[in-house]
Amino acid sequence: MTRRAEPGAGTSVTSKVLALLEAFTPDATELSLSELARRSGVSLATAHRRAAELVEWGALERDAAGRYRVGLRLWEVASLAPRGLGLRDAAMPFLEDLYEVTHENVQLAVREGLEVVFVERIAGRDAVPVWTRVGGRFALHATGVGLVLLAHAPAAVQEEVLGAPLRAFTPKTVSDPAHLRRMLADVRKLGYSVSDGQVTVDALSVGAPVFAADGSVAAAVSLVVRADSTQPSALAPLVMAAARGIGRALAGGPSRVFPAGRPR
Amino acid sequence: MTRRAEPGAGTSVTSKVLALLEAFTPDATELSLSELARRSGVSLATAHRRAAELVEWGALERDAAGRYRVGLRLWEVASLAPRGLGLRDAAMPFLEDLYEVTHENVQLAVREGLEVVFVERIAGRDAVPVWTRVGGRFALHATGVGLVLLAHAPAAVQEEVLGAPLRAFTPKTVSDPAHLRRMLADVRKLGYSVSDGQVTVDALSVGAPVFAADGSVAAAVSLVVRADSTQPSALAPLVMAAARGIGRALAGGPSRVFPAGRPR
Repeated sequence: MTRRAEPGAGTSVTSKVLALLEAFTPDATELSLSELARRSGVSLATAHRRAAELVEWGALERDAAGRYRVGLRLWEVASLAPRGLGLRDAAMPFLEDLYEVTHENVQLAVREGLEVVFVERIAGRDAVPVWTRVGGRFALHATGVGLVLLAHAPAAVQEEVLGAPLRAFTPKTVSDPAHLRRMLADVRKLGYSVSDGQVTVDALSVGAPVFAADGSVAAAVSLVVRADSTQPSALAPLVMAAARGIGRALAGGPSRVFPAGRPR
Repeated sequence: MTRRAEPGAGTSVTSKVLALLEAFTPDATELSLSELARRSGVSLATAHRRAAELVEWGALERDAAGRYRVGLRLWEVASLAPRGLGLRDAAMPFLEDLYEVTHENVQLAVREGLEVVFVERIAGRDAVPVWTRVGGRFALHATGVGLVLLAHAPAAVQEEVLGAPLRAFTPKTVSDPAHLRRMLADVRKLGYSVSDGQVTVDALSVGAPVFAADGSVAAAVSLVVRADSTQPSALAPLVMAAARGIGRALAGGPSRVFPAGRPR
């Protein structure tokens, strides 16, 4: 489900450096030099030279066994991404409130191309198991957050998703384009989405859009609960209120939410 | 307080690419092309060419006004850093518990060189204001997490910190090396740190070490409360228990904490 450029597709040094970073995936977070070279489609010598530069800067680190992994320094720079931790910081107080009131799974996601990227999740210890990974991706047409993001995506994005085969994760996944189109219209009309057993049969997710100041949808928030535990209509106001709060915080700008200075 | 390489210090293309990324800082998350070029020490033409490659890959994004910012794709790759979100994912259930019990500020940090890097924070809405930024840095000798990380750092790191001028953030900051050395010995003996008014006068922080399987200190956890609200000795067991839980989760490996598959 992860978008990957063709290994070594670019010939520029920049693209080789990026290919090295792209060699790391959720199921391969630590790589030997030869794995790194193979996965990024460059020679062993090139991988060795570039990786040494990346290690020196801190974009990569080496463990005791000499294996490479993504470095904390890259994570620090990446934490400045407005759509990553920037969004997450603005949203966190509202996500916390949602969690405290429900003790269910709370998720925050954005659309990247034709997929959902999860930016934050708070997992209730006793809530229905949800194995979303922060930084992980998923299809747009099945999850609560995905349905919201798809419903408010540009027409071209919707057509591309609806025009491709829609994978059925469970018997309840809506994989008929006409049916999905009606669902998306409902999401826009009601102001929230419901994904009932469409990813795993035992879970129900209610999602709502976070509007940016310009009226576009910047993100989506959801609650995920056991499929038989609650009526979606009871959860929707909670999720929508949290989404509105996050939208307001975003409009105020990150500097209002987290003034610079005095950490401790 | 941020470590910065000399702009354009390296002459390789790799170092120029990294210099472009490093141009972004907490107080400059969106940059025009000329700002990007100036801050990274490369020519306008070079900045333009490299930035275009970074935008194409998704390491940078451009906003409606054409300004550059760190892209979500870089954040996705960086989320694979074991010391960033990897640690954070393992720690989150324990941080949540700590927050639910206290409703105070909960922080998770690691040492990077001579500084603290904050990996997670959960902020109580009514708790004493703490303006730590996830991904942000701070001095080792003042904060609760910093004192823990310094107390357990290699001797060479301790000597370097103690040998340099120790900035006094408040009148209570310990900036005398001999006094600080005794404090660090206490941190090791007691198993927790106390930073009482040493960063801001109204806040008190209690920190505890997260031990890795090899016995080294991988991270530190802290609670930050109002300076006059609680005895540190009452908070210490809570913080230490959370730190031990995180250490156990780390030893079990990320795959045990977040099995792959079925996100929703």
